[in-house]
Amino acid sequence: MATVTRTVAEVSESAKRAARELAVASTEAKNAALTRLAELLGERADGVVQANAEDLADERAADLTPALRDRLTLDEPRVAAMADGVRAIAALPDPVGEVLDERTLESGLRMRKVRVPLGVIAVVYEARPNVTVDCAALTLKSGNAIVLRGSSYAARSNAALAQLVREAVAEAGLPEAAVELLTSGDRAELTELATAEGLVDLIIPRGGEGLKEALKSVATVPVMYAAAGNCHVYVHEDADLEMARAVAFNAKVDRPGVCNAAETLLVNAAVAEEFLPAIVGELRDAGVELVGDDRTRSAAGNGAVGEATAEDWDTEYLDMRMTVGVVDSLDDAIDHVNRHGTGHSEAIVTSSEEAAEGFTEGVDAAVVYVNASTRFTDGFEFGMGAEIGNSTQKLHARGPIGLRELTTFKYVVHGDGQIRD
Amino acid sequence: MATVTRTVAEVSESAKRAARELAVASTEAKNAALTRLAELLGERADGVVQANAEDLADERAADLTPALRDRLTLDEPRVAAMADGVRAIAALPDPVGEVLDERTLESGLRMRKVRVPLGVIAVVYEARPNVTVDCAALTLKSGNAIVLRGSSYAARSNAALAQLVREAVAEAGLPEAAVELLTSGDRAELTELATAEGLVDLIIPRGGEGLKEALKSVATVPVMYAAAGNCHVYVHEDADLEMARAVAFNAKVDRPGVCNAAETLLVNAAVAEEFLPAIVGELRDAGVELVGDDRTRSAAGNGAVGEATAEDWDTEYLDMRMTVGVVDSLDDAIDHVNRHGTGHSEAIVTSSEEAAEGFTEGVDAAVVYVNASTRFTDGFEFGMGAEIGNSTQKLHARGPIGLRELTTFKYVVHGDGQIRD
Repeated sequence: MATVTRTVAEVSESAKRAARELAVASTEAKNAALTRLAELLGERADGVVQANAEDLADERAADLTPALRDRLTLDEPRVAAMADGVRAIAALPDPVGEVLDERTLESGLRMRKVRVPLGVIAVVYEARPNVTVDCAALTLKSGNAIVLRGSSYAARSNAALAQLVREAVAEAGLPEAAVELLTSGDRAELTELATAEGLVDLIIPRGGEGLKEALKSVATVPVMYAAAGNCHVYVHEDADLEMARAVAFNAKVDRPGVCNAAETLLVNAAVAEEFLPAIVGELRDAGVELVGDDRTRSAAGNGAVGEATAEDWDTEYLDMRMTVGVVDSLDDAIDHVNRHGTGHSEAIVTSSEEAAEGFTEGVDAAVVYVNASTRFTDGFEFGMGAEIGNSTQKLHARGPIGLRELTTFKYVVHGDGQIRD
Repeated sequence: MATVTRTVAEVSESAKRAARELAVASTEAKNAALTRLAELLGERADGVVQANAEDLADERAADLTPALRDRLTLDEPRVAAMADGVRAIAALPDPVGEVLDERTLESGLRMRKVRVPLGVIAVVYEARPNVTVDCAALTLKSGNAIVLRGSSYAARSNAALAQLVREAVAEAGLPEAAVELLTSGDRAELTELATAEGLVDLIIPRGGEGLKEALKSVATVPVMYAAAGNCHVYVHEDADLEMARAVAFNAKVDRPGVCNAAETLLVNAAVAEEFLPAIVGELRDAGVELVGDDRTRSAAGNGAVGEATAEDWDTEYLDMRMTVGVVDSLDDAIDHVNRHGTGHSEAIVTSSEEAAEGFTEGVDAAVVYVNASTRFTDGFEFGMGAEIGNSTQKLHARGPIGLRELTTFKYVVHGDGQIRD
C-alpha cells in the first residue's frame, strides 16, 4: 500500500468506484479473496507479528495500560485465529442478490425487492488490529467497500494486515481499492469521514463511548452505533430459584468484559429473602463485588452487599461488579429495565407464561430472554455467523450486526411501457 | 387539547408512556380509533374548516405565496379526502406482531424475531394541515405514538385536527397522549426534539430542503429523510422509441410537482437524431421548458432547447422544466445517473435484457425501472398502502415508507434455563 497520505475524499472516492465493481462481484470471487486472505495470514504471519512488534516498541505504546497493550498485541495464534474467522465468513451464505419480495403489481409491473450492498462502509476503531481483518472480511463478503480508520498506535500492524487483504482481493480479480486504510492519524480525518455524504454510506464506530460521542456530534453520514449493554436479569416471584441462580451467575461471571454480560440483578420482593443470600454468596465467592439497595443489603445480610449510588444503576461495568435491587412487581421490574437499560439484552426468570409475555412485550430491547442467560446475544449463537457488533439502536439493525445487516435493498421493476394516469 | 404550552421534554415523556400502551394495543382497538376518526372528520368538518379559515385570515398568512396558501387551505372535500385516507389505513394489515423469523438455536433456545413499533415518532412539517391526520393515522396503526410539530401558520387547523384524533383514540380506549401536538412554534423546539434521545425514537421531516438541513446539523435522534427526487429517464440505443416517448412524457408531465417525476432525459447518441425532435416537440407543446447540452440542442434543432447550466443537471425542478442530455453508452448513462441522481427512481427504456440488467445493477437508487415511468414509485402502486414519504436513504427504509417501515423488531428468546459456557 502506498505510504503517501491521501485525503479522506480521495480515499473515499477510490472506495466508491471499487464498491460499484464489488456490488456485482460473484460469490465465487468474493470467497476466493477470503480464502486467499486466510492463506496469506498463515504464510505471512511473521511479517504481521513483526509489524506489530514495531507498534509495541514505539515509545507512544509505553503509555498504554496493560489491557490496551494486550488488545494491541498480535502473536502467531492470534493471527491464526483471524484466519479462522475469515474462513468462517467465507463459509457463510452470500446475502447479496437475495430476493426479499417479488410481486406483479396491479399496473402489471413486475417488482422484485433485491438485497444489495450498502456501498462504502467506514469503520473507525481503536488499537485492535484484528478489527482490520474481521471488518474487511465482513464487508467484502457483503459486497461493500471498506474505509478503515484505525488507531495510530496500531498503524504498522494495520498497514501490514490491510496489505494482505488487498493482495488477496487483487488475486481474486477484484479491485484492491475495495479495502482502503486511512493512514494520517489526523483527528480531522474523523470529521471528514463523518461528513462525506454521497461517498460514505455508513460509519460504524468500534470503540468506547468517547469515540461514539465524538462521531454523534459531527456525523451527517449514517452511523450504526453498537451502544453499551447495561443488561439485567430479573427473578420473578414464581421463578425456579435454582435456574435463576444459574442464569444470574452465568450472565455476570461467564465473561464480564463483553456487552451481553449482566450488570444488574433484580429480584422480586416475594423471593428476596429466600434467593438473595445464596446468589450473593456465590457471586462473592467468584470474586464479584456487589452493591445494592437497602432491601437487598438487608436480605443478603452481613454487609455482603455495598451501597449502590444512583450512578451504579446506569453503569455498564464490563467488570466483576454487579448492582442488585429488589422490586415489588413485574411492572416495577419492566419500568426499571426500560429506565436504566440500554436496549441490549434483558432476561426474566419465571415459571409463568403470563409474566414471560408481560416482560417480553413490555421491555424495549433488542433481545428479551425468558429463562436463559443474556450471554446468548451473539451472531454465531443466533445462527447469523460473524458479527461486526451488536446494535442497540432501533432503525435498520437491532441486535447482532451480521452480513445481512450490512446490506440494503433495491426495488427492480420491469414493465412493458407502463405509464401512470 | 390544553393550550398551556408544555416543554418538548414533557410532551415527549407523555408520548413515551402512551407508546408503551399502544405497542400492545389490539388491531381492533387501533382500527376502532381510526374508524371513529374518519367519522369525526365527517361530523365535525365545519369546525375544522372554521379553524382553518382563522389560520388563513391571520395577518401572517397574507405573506404566503398562492401555492403555499393553497396547501394550507382546507375545505369540506379536502377534509372528506382525509377521512377516506384514514379509512384506507384502517383497512391495511397491522404490521405489529408479524413474525419475521422463528428458529430453534443450537443451544435449544427458541428464538422469534417479531415486528414491534418504534415507539415515539416525531413528524416535523410545514403548513399542510392534512399531514396532521395522515401521519397520526399511520403511526397509530403501526402502534407508535406521535409528536406533531406543525407550522405556526397552521396552528389552529392542526389543533382542531389533533383534537379529533385524540378524541377518537380516547373513545377506542387508547391513551390520547399517543397523539401530541407541540404548539409553541418556537424554533428551539426543533433542536430539543432532534436531541431528545431516549424519548423520541425517530424524526421524520416532511418539508423542504431547508428543514432537512436544519435537522441534519443538530439531530442526534435518528432522522428518516425523504430527500429530493432528481429522477432520470434514459433511452437506450435499442429502445422502442414510441414506448420511450410515452414513458419520458409521462414521467415529466403527468404530475411534475411530485418527487417521482423525471427531471432529466438522457438519450443514447445512436438514436438522438431520430428521437429528440419528436419528444422535444411534444414536451414543448405540453408547456415544458427544455434545456440541454450541445448535442441535444443540435439534434432538436431550431433553438427548441435552451442551454443547460451545470446546476440544471442537479436540480429537482418539481415544475414543467426538463434537462436533456445525449450520452454515448449505457455506462455513461449509469455514471451520469449515479453522479447527479438522488437515489430515488430511475428508468431505462431498452429492448435488450443485457442493457436492462446493466442499468438495474449499476444504478444506485431505491427503485430502478425497465420500460416504465418513474411515476410508479408510490406506496399504493407498490401495494404497501399509504406512505409517509419516500426514503432515498439506504438504511432501514428505502423507497416508500409505509406501515412496516415505521416499525422495528425484537428478538424474543425462550429457554429452559440455558446458560453459556
